[in-house]
Order: sequence, then C-alpha cells, then structure tokens
Amino acid sequence: MSTEAGTAALRAIYEPLADSVRRLIDISIRTEANALTVVSAKGKIDSAVADLSKSLTAESFGVRQNDDGQSMAWGNVLIGVRNPVAPPLVIHHDPGGFVWTDFELGAAYEGPAGHVHGGVCALILDHVLGATAHKPGKPAVTGTLTVRYLRGTPLGSLRAEANIERIEGVKTFAVGRISDASGVATVQAEGVFIHPRSRGL
Amino acid sequence: MSTEAGTAALRAIYEPLADSVRRLIDISIRTEANALTVVSAKGKIDSAVADLSKSLTAESFGVRQNDDGQSMAWGNVLIGVRNPVAPPLVIHHDPGGFVWTDFELGAAYEGPAGHVHGGVCALILDHVLGATAHKPGKPAVTGTLTVRYLRGTPLGSLRAEANIERIEGVKTFAVGRISDASGVATVQAEGVFIHPRSRGL
Repeated sequence: MSTEAGTAALRAIYEPLADSVRRLIDISIRTEANALTVVSAKGKIDSAVADLSKSLTAESFGVRQNDDGQSMAWGNVLIGVRNPVAPPLVIHHDPGGFVWTDFELGAAYEGPAGHVHGGVCALILDHVLGATAHKPGKPAVTGTLTVRYLRGTPLGSLRAEANIERIEGVKTFAVGRISDASGVATVQAEGVFIHPRSRGL
Repeated sequence: MSTEAGTAALRAIYEPLADSVRRLIDISIRTEANALTVVSAKGKIDSAVADLSKSLTAESFGVRQNDDGQSMAWGNVLIGVRNPVAPPLVIHHDPGGFVWTDFELGAAYEGPAGHVHGGVCALILDHVLGATAHKPGKPAVTGTLTVRYLRGTPLGSLRAEANIERIEGVKTFAVGRISDASGVATVQAEGVFIHPRSRGL
C-alpha cells in the first residue's frame, strides 16, 4: 500500500474524513443550536471517535514516504490532507524559486473579531517562506523569522507568497507577505532557513 | 443570557462540544480504521454537522462581552473554549506582568515528524508575548515579532512564558520563550505590541 496507487487509495479513504471534520470545526464554533441538539450531535461525534479509535497509531502521523520517494506530510498542521486543522494549504513553486498559495481562513482561525489571529499569519509565513528553501529529501528548518504587521488580516480569501533573497552556504534568506482579497499586503516577513547537517529534522 | 450565570450556562452547553471535536481531530489523524469504518464514522460526523447547522451565525464567533464586561473570546484560535483548534491555552498573569501557560500539543500541531510546527511556536509566542500588553477593554495588536529557533520542539507537554522588557508610550516591548517538558528552551521571541488609538482592533 505504499506505491503511488496505494497512496492514492489511502488518500481516497482518509481525505474525505478530514474534510468532514474540518466542516464540523467551523460549524461547531458558529452553531447556536439549543442544548438538546448539541447533546445529540456530541453523541454522534463521540460515537465516531469510538469507531475510529479501534485501530490507532500511538503517535502523531509523522512524515512518511512511499515507495516512489514521495513525502506524505499528511499530518502537517498547515498542508496535511489528513489534518482537519490544516486549511489545507496547497503550495505552488515557480521554477524561479517564487512560492505562493491561495487559501480561505474561516472562524477557526480568528483572533480579533472578524480577523485572522496575528499568530496564524506568522505560522503561515513561517511555512511559505520556509518552502522556498525546501528541496525533496532535504528539508530546511527555520533559524529566525521576523514578522511585521501592517494592518489587520480579514478572515476570508487570502494569498501568501515568498521568494529567496539570497543563499549563503546552508542558509536561505527569504522574504514574503500575506495579502487580502483586494491584494493589499497585511503582514510582511523575513526569515533565515537552514539545511541542518545533523539535527535530524 | 449575557449575565455571569448566563455565560456559565452557555459555556456548559458548548464547551463539551468543542472538547469532543478536539478529540475527534486528534483521532481522525491517527486512525488506521478501514474504509468501511471511516465511511460510517464520516456519516455520523456529517449528521452532527447537519444538526448543528440548523441554527448558525453567518460570521465567525467574534469577541463578545457579557453584561459584567467580561470578554468572551470563545472563538479564538488559541484560547477559545468553543474553538476545537485551540488547545485551548489558559493564560496566567502574575501581578508583576509575567505571563505563562502550560499546555499539551498533540498530532494536530505537527510539522517535522514528532515535533511541533515551527510556525505554531510563533503563533503561541505571538499570543503569550502579546498577553503581557493586554489590559481589560484595551487590547494590544502585534507590531513586530521576531522568533529564534534554538532546537526542535517535541510534541507533548510544553510551557510558554513572557514578560515585559519596557514600555514606551503606546508600545510594549516583550520577550518570551517556549520550553519543553524538561525545561529546556526550544524557541525564543521578542515583540513590540501596540495599543492602537483608532485601528479598531
């Protein structure tokens, strides 16, 4: 089950589950259902938890590889197709090193009313800037990240993008930003990403 | 329903729902259940979504206030008791301005295998450093946040803490860190937090 076809089969089982849980997260925050309805819904959720718990890994999902050498970061908090917390981001890479992603953030990512939590912007920028330095089988870890908040980031349709400023040995210096639906930059960031020699990450 | 007793009654309805969804998020990432079991569990989840959707606010939860002036950030991505994405953090304030929180992060917050996503560390530090500047009815927004990664942060029991370095007018300069279960610092941060005069956040 670890060939490309096996990977696709596994994804076909578990991705729709994550999509359903993702919808549930949003709805459970926004519901105004009465106590009886909530108790009934909670019963269904607890029953699903019991079913799914019968066969369980002890640990987190980790980063697995299939026989084709493809990395399956399905548990990742931002890009994991099996992680309902992940929007999930789909990261695009230009041949020139430019990286971007378009995404929607709803009620689950809120900080100030109607706005994305500033820390979620930092989370996304860490990942997208870091993606400029990632190479297959050669991940980069963040050394330093500096985030500048220009204005509030409204919940809704957003874009994050980044590019490499320069590379010095194992260090990649990247810059990037988040912009809102009208293309106005709301948050900027710069970061140093490192290809570790022996940190095992 | 907006008095202190009303707030407690609302919390008694919705907090257990968020707890159940939080468990479901973790289990749905770690499950190895077969296709039939997953389809059945998904059916229960979708049914809960349908029930809870019958009475729904159009927007995010927002930050509400009850009649006692208490702020209810129940939808907040980090501290919201109604947000299943939130661990949720419980932030403690010392009279001297020191802020700390002890928490557990599981499979839902993963980046590198077995480790917290570096961006999640930034998210948490943004919030905890910012909490040094928050005052009731007078929230602060992040101006700049700089995060330095010292080593990987393992999933499990963690602490985040912060204190004020200095205050200059509307600006609070704060420093802080995340440490692992053995008390070793894994990530450090410094930030500037601003009490906006008219930004409405």
